[in-house]
Parts: sequence; C-alpha cells; structure tokens
Amino acid sequence: MSDSKIRRPRAETPKGFRDYFGAEVSARKAMLDAIATIYHRYGFDPLETSAVETVEALGKFLPDVDRPNEGVFAWQEDGDWLALRYDLTAPLARVAAQYRNDLPSPYRRYAMGPVWRNEKPGPGRFRQFYQCDADTVGSASVAADAEICAMLADALEAAGIARGDYLIRVNSRKVLNGVMEAAGILDPADPDRFAPERGIVLRAIDKIDRLGAEGVRALLGEGRRDESGDFTTGAGLTPTQAEVVMAFTTARRATGTATLAQLRELVAASRLGTEGVAELHDIAALLEAQGHGPDRIVIDPGVVRGLGYYTGPVFEAELTFEITDEKGRRRQFGSVAGGGRYDDLVRRFTGQAVPATGVSIGVDRLLAALQARGHGAAAASGPVVVTVMDRDRMTDYMAMAGELRTAGIRAEVYLGNPKNFGNQLKYADRRAAPVAVIQGSDEATRDAVVLKDLVLGARIAESASLEEWKGRPAQVEVARGDLVAAVRRMLGA
Amino acid sequence: MSDSKIRRPRAETPKGFRDYFGAEVSARKAMLDAIATIYHRYGFDPLETSAVETVEALGKFLPDVDRPNEGVFAWQEDGDWLALRYDLTAPLARVAAQYRNDLPSPYRRYAMGPVWRNEKPGPGRFRQFYQCDADTVGSASVAADAEICAMLADALEAAGIARGDYLIRVNSRKVLNGVMEAAGILDPADPDRFAPERGIVLRAIDKIDRLGAEGVRALLGEGRRDESGDFTTGAGLTPTQAEVVMAFTTARRATGTATLAQLRELVAASRLGTEGVAELHDIAALLEAQGHGPDRIVIDPGVVRGLGYYTGPVFEAELTFEITDEKGRRRQFGSVAGGGRYDDLVRRFTGQAVPATGVSIGVDRLLAALQARGHGAAAASGPVVVTVMDRDRMTDYMAMAGELRTAGIRAEVYLGNPKNFGNQLKYADRRAAPVAVIQGSDEATRDAVVLKDLVLGARIAESASLEEWKGRPAQVEVARGDLVAAVRRMLGA
Repeated sequence: MSDSKIRRPRAETPKGFRDYFGAEVSARKAMLDAIATIYHRYGFDPLETSAVETVEALGKFLPDVDRPNEGVFAWQEDGDWLALRYDLTAPLARVAAQYRNDLPSPYRRYAMGPVWRNEKPGPGRFRQFYQCDADTVGSASVAADAEICAMLADALEAAGIARGDYLIRVNSRKVLNGVMEAAGILDPADPDRFAPERGIVLRAIDKIDRLGAEGVRALLGEGRRDESGDFTTGAGLTPTQAEVVMAFTTARRATGTATLAQLRELVAASRLGTEGVAELHDIAALLEAQGHGPDRIVIDPGVVRGLGYYTGPVFEAELTFEITDEKGRRRQFGSVAGGGRYDDLVRRFTGQAVPATGVSIGVDRLLAALQARGHGAAAASGPVVVTVMDRDRMTDYMAMAGELRTAGIRAEVYLGNPKNFGNQLKYADRRAAPVAVIQGSDEATRDAVVLKDLVLGARIAESASLEEWKGRPAQVEVARGDLVAAVRRMLGA
Repeated sequence: MSDSKIRRPRAETPKGFRDYFGAEVSARKAMLDAIATIYHRYGFDPLETSAVETVEALGKFLPDVDRPNEGVFAWQEDGDWLALRYDLTAPLARVAAQYRNDLPSPYRRYAMGPVWRNEKPGPGRFRQFYQCDADTVGSASVAADAEICAMLADALEAAGIARGDYLIRVNSRKVLNGVMEAAGILDPADPDRFAPERGIVLRAIDKIDRLGAEGVRALLGEGRRDESGDFTTGAGLTPTQAEVVMAFTTARRATGTATLAQLRELVAASRLGTEGVAELHDIAALLEAQGHGPDRIVIDPGVVRGLGYYTGPVFEAELTFEITDEKGRRRQFGSVAGGGRYDDLVRRFTGQAVPATGVSIGVDRLLAALQARGHGAAAASGPVVVTVMDRDRMTDYMAMAGELRTAGIRAEVYLGNPKNFGNQLKYADRRAAPVAVIQGSDEATRDAVVLKDLVLGARIAESASLEEWKGRPAQVEVARGDLVAAVRRMLGA
C-alpha cells in the first residue's frame, strides 16, 4: 500500500490543550521547586494522586442524572464512570478519607500538578493547567491558618517576588457573617432566612473596586442602573443597615490593631463576629511571632473573593507592582494566590466534619508575574554548539563536547547534515547557543580551535555603532588544550 | 436532608491506580531531577505535551473499526475521539510533525511524566506510571546514537548508580539482518520472504538466557519440546544455517575490537550487515573519544530485546549487581533502560521518513534499584516537631518553629488538639521527627527548652544494652536562646 492511499492523521494538539517547550518547562519547574522547598521546610509532605478518579469520589454527578457533570473529562468502564481530576482538593478529600487511619493528624500536604477542565476553550483558556496547593487537614487551630499565610509569603519570596512587591490580605468569613448579623440579614436561629439578600450583599462588596462606594450602596439598597441603562436589583437594605455593611468594607486602618478595634466595634452584637475578630487577632499575633509583620501580611476586611465557600479565615496574595496590560494601560498585577478555612472536606465520604485550611497558588499567573519582573529569561541558556567542519573527524568533535560537559558546561555537537556550514550557524542561532566551536582542517593542523561569541556577535549586529565592541573580538582562535578555559571565559564575559 | 439519607461515595483510588506519598514522591523527583540535569547538559530540551491527544494522532484506532484500541483510555467529544497518551513517543511524533518548521533540526528533547494504559490491573501493574525518555529527531548520524549511550551512562551515575554497577550493551539491527541474510533467511530483493522464520529466530535468540544454547538450537531447527511436554515449532533452519545464527549470539569477545572482527567475518557476505558492523565500530570509537570506555558501554551481539521495532543501533542498560528477589534467590537486577534507532517517527503524519534515536529509562525499576542500593532512605527526613504544652502560648511555639526554618531546618508546630501530650509524641513518631522541642511553664519560667532526640530514643528502645548510649542523653535542656544551635547539634550527631 503506498503512502498516498492512506489518509494521514492531523498532527494537532487537541483543542484547548497545548505543549510546553524548553524554557517554558524549565521556568515553571524552577518556580515550583522553589515553592516546594519552602513547603517542605514548613513540614508539609508531597502527595501525588493519580490523574484519574472515580466520578463518584469527585462528586461530579449531575443532580438527578446518571452521568457526570460536563465540566469533567469522563468515560465509562464496566458501568462505573472514571474522570480526570478537575482540581487537587477533591483528590485530597478522597485521600484524607481513604487513609484516615494511616495519615498523621493533622496532615500537612502539598500537591503540584496538572488538572483538567472540560470547558469550551478560548484565548488563553486551556483545558489542562497546573495547580499548586498546600493544605492542613485535621487542625481547627487558627495557628494552621497563620502558618499557611506565613508559608505563602516565604514561598512567593523564594519564587522570586521581592518583599514589598506582594501583600497577603487576611479576612474572616465569621466577621462578615457577624456584620450580616449586625445589619439584620443573618439570623443564627434561622440560617436560611435572608440568604438571597446576603448573596446580593456579597457580590456587591466584591465589586467595590469597580463600582465605588456609591455603586455598592445602591446595590445594598434598592438597586443600581448602570451606564447602559440595565437595572440590577438591590438587597433592599435600609440606609442604616447598608451603613453597617459599608463600614465593614472601609474598616481597614493604618495598623492591624486599629483595624481589629474597628471590626470589634462593628460586630459587637454578634457572637460569631466577635469570635471571628478574636481569630484575626490571634492570627496577626502568631504571624508577628514568626517574623511575618504587616509589611507582608495584613488584616484587611476588603478581601471578599470566594468568601461564600469558606467557613473561617480567608486570605489572598496580591502583587502590588504595576504592569502594562495588553491595552497599554498601567495596572496592578493583582491576585496570584488565595485560600482559607473550609470545614467539610471529608464529610461526603465519612459523615464526619474534618477541619481544613489551605492555599492555592495560580501557577500560570505567578509565572507571568515573574516574567514581568524579568525572571525566567536568565534560566534559558542554549548549549555551546560544536560545529562539524569535517565529518570524518566526529570523534574529535564529540571529544570536545565531552570535555565541556565534564566541566559542567552545556554542550552538543551539530548532528544534522554538516555539508552547509551556514545551516550549522543558523541551527546554533535557533538553539540560542552562546558560543560556537569551530575546527576545520587548518585549525586541526595547528592544534587549535576557533570560538565564535554568538552573544557578542548578535549585539554587534544589532548595534548601529561598532565603536563600543572594538576591543572585543567576536571570534578568537585558541589552543585546543585551552578549549574549556576559553569557553568558560567567553560565557563569563 | 440528614447525612444518613445520602449514599456516601466510596473513598477509593480507581482500580489499577495508586497514590504516592511523601518520600515516594521526593525520591522519584530527586532521581528525575538528577537525570534531567545530565540531559540538559547534553543539549537536550524539556518538552511537556498535554496528557490528552486525539486518538487519530496516537494512531490507536483498532484496524477496520471506528473506535479506539482498548489499550487506551478514550472518550468521544463532538464526534472525535480523545485519549490519554500511552507513551511519550507518540506525542513526540505528533510534535515533530506539527512544529517541523519551528523546531531546530536535529531536535533533541527529553520528556518525563505519567502515561496511561487501559489494561487489566494486576499485582505491581498499574494503569498510570512514569516514563522518562530522551530522543534526537532528525539526525541520521550514529554520533546521535553514541551520544544517547554516553548520556544514559552519565544519567545513571547522576541518579546514584555507581560506575561498575551498570553496563550499557550496544547491538545493531542491521548486523542481525546481515546474519539473517548470511543464514539465508533474508532476501534483500524480497524482504517479506521468510518473515515467519525470522520471527521464530528473533524470539529464540531472545530466550537464550533461559533455554541455553541447546534450547535455542532446537528452536532454530525443527522445534523444541519443553519439560511439560508442549512442543514449540522451530524455524526449520538446516544445521549449517543454525550455526550462523548461533555464532552471532556468541560473538562477544573480550574487547570491542575482537567482537567487531568476529561480527565482520560473520556478515561478510551481507552489505547491510557490513554497514551495521561499521556503525558499531564508529559508535565504539565515538564513545571512547568522549571518555565512555568499555567499563561502561560495550558492543554486545547478545542484546536482542525489541530489535524487531528498531532499524539500526539498539542499546540496553543493565544493572550488574545482585539482589535477593521475592523468592529469596540471588539474581542480577537486570535491565533498567533501553532504546535504539527508529526511522519512521513522523511518516504517519507527513509522509516523510525522519530518522530518530532515543532511550527510555524504566522509572519504577531504576527507583527500585536505587532503593536496593540503599538510596532514598536518607532523602526522607521528618520535621522537627515543636510540641504544645500550653495552648495559650502558641505564639511562642510558632516563633520557635519560625527560627528553626529561618536557619534552614525543617520544622513545624503540633497543630492537633494538644490536651494529650502522649498523642503529640506519637504524632512526632509518625512524622519520623528527629527532634521534639518541649517547653512547659517551668521551662518557660527558666527561659529554657527541652530537646528530645527521637532518633537516639528509638535506638535506645531497640537496643538490649543501654551501655553504649550512656554517654548520650536522649533529652537535654538548653537555654531558649540556644534553640537553633542545639537542634542543629542534635541533627548533626
């Protein structure tokens, strides 16, 4: 059968998936390794669960339907549904239940790896991406929350975010509930009452950066008409009730102590709120004791994101430096990590509530931030390329590469067709090679090699004036015996 | 709805999958990191493809059937089949075709990651496992094969296999074909002729360790009856033909030069065989030039495994030390890596033959070998555990852990319920903690801490005689200010 009769398969990554090459892989690995070193030092153990889970364990069946949620990649096997994990928390819950008699308690673990989402792909939205989580399972103590915040700060610094370029903001779901209680839209005796109102309030607070105080106030009251004329129904709070909520959003003061005093006053009438403020106070004290002061971690009632899901302290790490976005505007980089306390981790499996707290770092966002700060470029270093002038002397060229490697220098011999020397230099260029090693028969007779400084060569090619490079030749001939030392000098320059 | 009305999901890893905890993850990572460092130094770039591929790209459709091979995990999406990759070579083929205009040529890449096989799980057989591959795509030069062998040797040593504990054996599919030609069961003008005979010969040679020369000779001839009475049909070679094949299997001599001379004579009548011997000669010379002598890499016609798949040089790394197997017998550890040249990598996609050569390290086998050699245990070090004697002084305990970490020492505070101190020590034990830090109110008043040496304590508990430990107390009280220095002394002891 000739090739032309066979329909050839398309060589394509499936829609929504992508491949990572060279420096992309190395930069992510370097970042995750730096984070893992910190997690390990805090006593966290790595956990690597399989990519495949039963849909039953993931809890991803559609309500009242006998097939999995469309959000997961799933397939049937002997009547059971299997699926790719969509996050690292669901597998942790399964592991915490499955091995509950064998794991230390509390169990501190970190996990790093890909997760899969069966969603419509879009620009910059992929169906496989990395997550990086750390959680403490089985501790009800706020010391566990404080520890996670301290560890997050250290991890960001280890990854390459300078102190002062980030801020971790800590809030509490309990304080917010205390505020709701003070505002009269949470009745501890009847928790379901006012649930719709609370939903509107939560979403309104979350939009304060965009809508401003007046916009939020409108949403807390009757509602708000936006520029387009659309009307969003409000929570229907009286002005007095709304003021309680507004006071919460602006409760941050210059010091943590002052912020806590402000909050304490706001929720004085609520047992839960008072408890939440006490917890925030303890967290601040525990962090201070570990040397993590308010230059890195602050109590800030303005952090609302995801509060609905959590049951106690919540935290978010923001990068405070500005970047230029795709539309050319200067803006703060924003959030790169978040987490908090959630106390229902394994109840689905065992019926028992197990307290847990944890953080998830946005791997791609943090990588983008590091790139914006100029990291990553240095990590990508091409190999020294030993060119092939005479294909009968491959042993000589391999020996050169071998010597360079033994000296710890990344090196390779050109292994394509050596006929066209220009192609070899183009190859070296594509490999981002810093140096090309050349030995033709003339040099071999003289027991010499020529070194071409490709970094310098590229700069000379870019530069309008050659004056500044005059003193440095882009090409030198050295004795064969000086190969390693001369390459090292050139790399160091 | 009360919990009792909900059917609880089972907390179980799906059949054939497993979870990796703590030291298991760390040991594999350390091994792969060491290997990656060598691959990088040889100029290889990391490539991370997505776990999901189109079944079309994988080439895993069943013949004449419109659904994928049962060997892959697959599901349908908008009429197309997607599947989890079952190895790292198929994605490389897809990438080499998809990015052929962007990748450097030759393209050296390494890949490390999980692959999935939809097979019946069994003891020790998992449906997700790691592979670790390095391949050079686009080079027809045997220098590429030699480089892979040298790199494999360096990678094994970097991972922790001592020189002398491994041997890489190199053979050639071309030489074997030359032998087949010399034996009269390969006709270059009619390659399909004698294919069944050649299959029997290949399988017979592969069994020489188990059947011995006489058993192989029987299979080359009329056939062989085993101890159970079963009869295996032979290749039907005449005794003269069979001797040609047998001479091949015993062609290894004390030196590579002598082995090559022997092979050259055997295949003198075959153009392909002579070419294969010349390639092996070049590989040996290239390796010698790079400093990889026959103490590490040898020409050995005895390596047959997988020859059917390859088109040129093939290689296999064996560990030469003995281990005790599960039945208590001493045996050689055996193969941990293998590879060779295969020249049809991207033809399925593009119609063009692209030469490629590569190696795959058996990740789980090499890990087991390292464990058998006593590596890995050292990597697992539990944290120093700061116990909680007084829950009102958590800030003090967190400060202690913070100081230890700042000094680079892995440390954590016990965050479970501190009421029962015995539980705290049991926890420390489960965490493999080397040291427990204790500060009750008495010690706090004296500004002191007690350090419990748990490693020494465990040894004393195991030891029949206490004599040898007399000089070393398992518990010491030190000034609070000396905490870090004293813990460091204890860890160093």
